[in-house]
Amino acid sequence: MWKELQPLGRHTGGGYRRYAWTPADAECRAWFREQAEARGLAYEVDGNGNQWAWHGDPAAGDAVVSGSHLDSVPDGGAYDGPLGVLSAFAAYDELRRRGTEFTRPLGIVNFTDEEGARFGLSCVGSRLATGSLTVEGAHALRDEDGVSLPRAMEAAGHDPDGLGADPVRLARIGAFVELHIEQGRALAETEHAVAVASAIWPHGRWRFDFNGEANHAGTTRLEDRRDPMLTYANTVLAARKKARIAGALATFGKVSVEPNGVNAVPSLVSGWLDSRAPDEETLATVVGEIERAAGERGVRDGVEVRVTRESTTPLVEFDHALRDTLAARLGDAPVLPTGAGHDAGILSASVPTAMLYVRNPTGVSHSPAESATEDDCVAGVTALADVLEGLV
Amino acid sequence: MWKELQPLGRHTGGGYRRYAWTPADAECRAWFREQAEARGLAYEVDGNGNQWAWHGDPAAGDAVVSGSHLDSVPDGGAYDGPLGVLSAFAAYDELRRRGTEFTRPLGIVNFTDEEGARFGLSCVGSRLATGSLTVEGAHALRDEDGVSLPRAMEAAGHDPDGLGADPVRLARIGAFVELHIEQGRALAETEHAVAVASAIWPHGRWRFDFNGEANHAGTTRLEDRRDPMLTYANTVLAARKKARIAGALATFGKVSVEPNGVNAVPSLVSGWLDSRAPDEETLATVVGEIERAAGERGVRDGVEVRVTRESTTPLVEFDHALRDTLAARLGDAPVLPTGAGHDAGILSASVPTAMLYVRNPTGVSHSPAESATEDDCVAGVTALADVLEGLV
Repeated sequence: MWKELQPLGRHTGGGYRRYAWTPADAECRAWFREQAEARGLAYEVDGNGNQWAWHGDPAAGDAVVSGSHLDSVPDGGAYDGPLGVLSAFAAYDELRRRGTEFTRPLGIVNFTDEEGARFGLSCVGSRLATGSLTVEGAHALRDEDGVSLPRAMEAAGHDPDGLGADPVRLARIGAFVELHIEQGRALAETEHAVAVASAIWPHGRWRFDFNGEANHAGTTRLEDRRDPMLTYANTVLAARKKARIAGALATFGKVSVEPNGVNAVPSLVSGWLDSRAPDEETLATVVGEIERAAGERGVRDGVEVRVTRESTTPLVEFDHALRDTLAARLGDAPVLPTGAGHDAGILSASVPTAMLYVRNPTGVSHSPAESATEDDCVAGVTALADVLEGLV
Repeated sequence: MWKELQPLGRHTGGGYRRYAWTPADAECRAWFREQAEARGLAYEVDGNGNQWAWHGDPAAGDAVVSGSHLDSVPDGGAYDGPLGVLSAFAAYDELRRRGTEFTRPLGIVNFTDEEGARFGLSCVGSRLATGSLTVEGAHALRDEDGVSLPRAMEAAGHDPDGLGADPVRLARIGAFVELHIEQGRALAETEHAVAVASAIWPHGRWRFDFNGEANHAGTTRLEDRRDPMLTYANTVLAARKKARIAGALATFGKVSVEPNGVNAVPSLVSGWLDSRAPDEETLATVVGEIERAAGERGVRDGVEVRVTRESTTPLVEFDHALRDTLAARLGDAPVLPTGAGHDAGILSASVPTAMLYVRNPTGVSHSPAESATEDDCVAGVTALADVLEGLV
C-alpha cells in the first residue's frame, strides 16, 4: 500500500503538498477508494467530503471506526495522517487473517482537510461533521487565491450542498480510534513502539496584522518611518520568551508582507501565531501577553496592531474508559499528552475517542524528516488490530 | 497626458503594479510611443528595450536627453518615474512654444525596468546600456515564476537578441537630465518646488538565508527547535539599530518563508536587506555588523545564516559642471543628495548627468501616498524646460 501512496503529491525536495481538493488530494482519495474496493468494503463519501469504508452495515449502530487523514501541511512528511489510514486498512487485514468475528460494524475513515494548509482552518471535515464548524463558516473559508471552500469542492467534483453537521452518522459510531505518528521524542527515549493518548493541549491560531506605512527604503529617514516589520520582529521574539516562561508553545511560522519589495518599507505585515499550553488559562495568559507586547512595541513604531482569533480548540481529554481499555489491552504502553490537534480531538466531543502513537525516532513532524521504522509501523498495526479486535 | 497614463497598471487599492514586460508595462510603453508620434518625434526602441523619442538626428552627437522610467514598485505611487518622462514631453512642448532654436538633438527616454520589481535587479535597462550588467547577467535574471528576462521580453514581443552594452548610442549623448519626484521631505520644509541633485548614496541589496529545521509547531519543545524565524526577527531589529548608530539606512522589506504554514516551524526564512549610507566605507561597516549579528544569533538558534550580495551601486557624484550649470540656471535651487538609485546614477558613469527633484509634501515614496501639487509639477516642467533650453 505504501508503494502506491508514497509518490502522490510529493514535491521537489521530498516534502508532500497534499492540500484539500487539489489534484494531489484527488489522487490520495482515489487510492483510498481503491483500498476499500479491493477489500470488498462498502465505500461512501459523506456530504462534508470525508471518505468511509465499511465492513458491516453502519446503520446497525455502535460501530467501531479507525482512520486519520491523507492531506498534508506544506512540504510535510509521509506519515502524518497517511500512517493512520493505512494502518487501519492493514489492521483490518490482520483481523481477517486472525478470523476475528465481527459483532459490530467496522469503519475506516479519511477525514478531509485535517491540516488546514489551504483554507487556514484545521480539521475541516471533522469540524463540519460535529457541527463545530457551521455551513456559513465553511462558506467563508477562502484559499490564498480567493477560492472558497465550496467552489474548491465543486471544482474537485464534489457537491458542496451536502456540507454541514452530520449527527446521524456520528451517532452510529460507538468508538473512534486514530493511530498517528508521534510528533515528539517521548517514545524515542523508551523501549515502547506505541503509546496511548491522554489529552490534547488546548491550542489556537491568531492573525496579527501590523499596519504601518509603505515608503521608499532608500530615502525615508529612520525616524520618519512607520515600519511594521520592526513590530513584527519584536513580537516574534516576545512570543518565544512569553511561551518559554509559561511552559507553553508559541510559533510564528507564516508571514505575509505588503508590498514585499526589497526597496519598500512594508505597509502591512501579517504574522500568524500558533500557541498551545497544558491548560486553557495558561494559553489565554500567554496569548494576552504576546498581544500586549505587540501593542506596546506598535506604539513605539507608529504601527497599528490588530489581532484576530482565527480558531481555538479547547483542552481535549480522551474518553477515560476507552483509554484505559486500550492501555490495558496493550500491556504497559505509555500514556502521553500532545500539543497537536487531530480529528480525534474534534470527534471526542461527540464520540468516545482514543488515539495511539507510533514512535518517531527523529521526533520531527510536519517535515520530510519525520519517520518511523518498519518494525515500529508493524507494531502500530498489530497494536491497532489488538485494540480493534477487543472492540468489535 | 496624465489622464491617459494614470489608469494604466493601477491595482485595487490605488497602487501601481507596472512590472517590466507585463501587460501593464506594455500599456505604458504604448502611451510613450503615442506621445512621441503625436509630436512628430522619431520613435525607436533600443536592443535593451529602452524607448527613445528624438527631435533632430541623434547620430549628429552631443545630444541632450531627458526622461526617466514608467515601471513601478509593487503598489507604487503615480509619480515615481512617470513624472520624469511626462515632464520631458511637456518641457519639449514648452520649448516649441517658446520657439527655441535647437542646435543639438533632443531625446526623451523611458528606461526599462528601473525598479527591478520583477527580476530583483534595479535599473536593468540603463545597466545593460552602460555594460554594468552583462548579457550573461541579464540572462540569469528570473522572476518569481522562474521566467527569465529574455523569455519575458520575448513574450512581450521584444527580441532579446539585442541585449547588451550600447556604447555607440551612449557616446552620442552630451548631457542627460532626469527629473524625479523627491523621495523625502527636504523640499517640503523650504519654499522651493525644485532642487538639483548632488549625489546618490552608495547602496545595495543582500539576501539573508536563515536555514533551520521544519517541525510541528504544536509538538516540538522550544529547546528542540532550530527556528529560523527567531534569527530573522533578531536580525531585523539589529539592522535597524546598527543603521541608526551609523547614520545609515537598513530595511528588511521583503521576506519569503518555507513552508510558510501556521503550524510549522519554518525550515527557511529568506529576508532581503536594503542598505544605504553616505559613503561606501560606512555602508560596508553597517552591513558587516548586521551579518555578524545574524551569525551570532544563528549560533544560539541552531540556524545557519548565509548572506548573498545581490547588487551594489557605488557612490554617484553627479557631473559637477552640469550640476552647477543647472543650479545657476534655476537661481537659488537647493542642491541635495539622495539615498535612492536612479537610471541617472547608472548613466553618470558614461555620460554627464544631472537630476532635478520636484517637491513631495508627504515625503512618502514607493506608495500611493507619494504626491506633488499641480503647481509644483508645472514648476518642475518649467525648470526642466529652462535647463534644456540652456543646453540645446
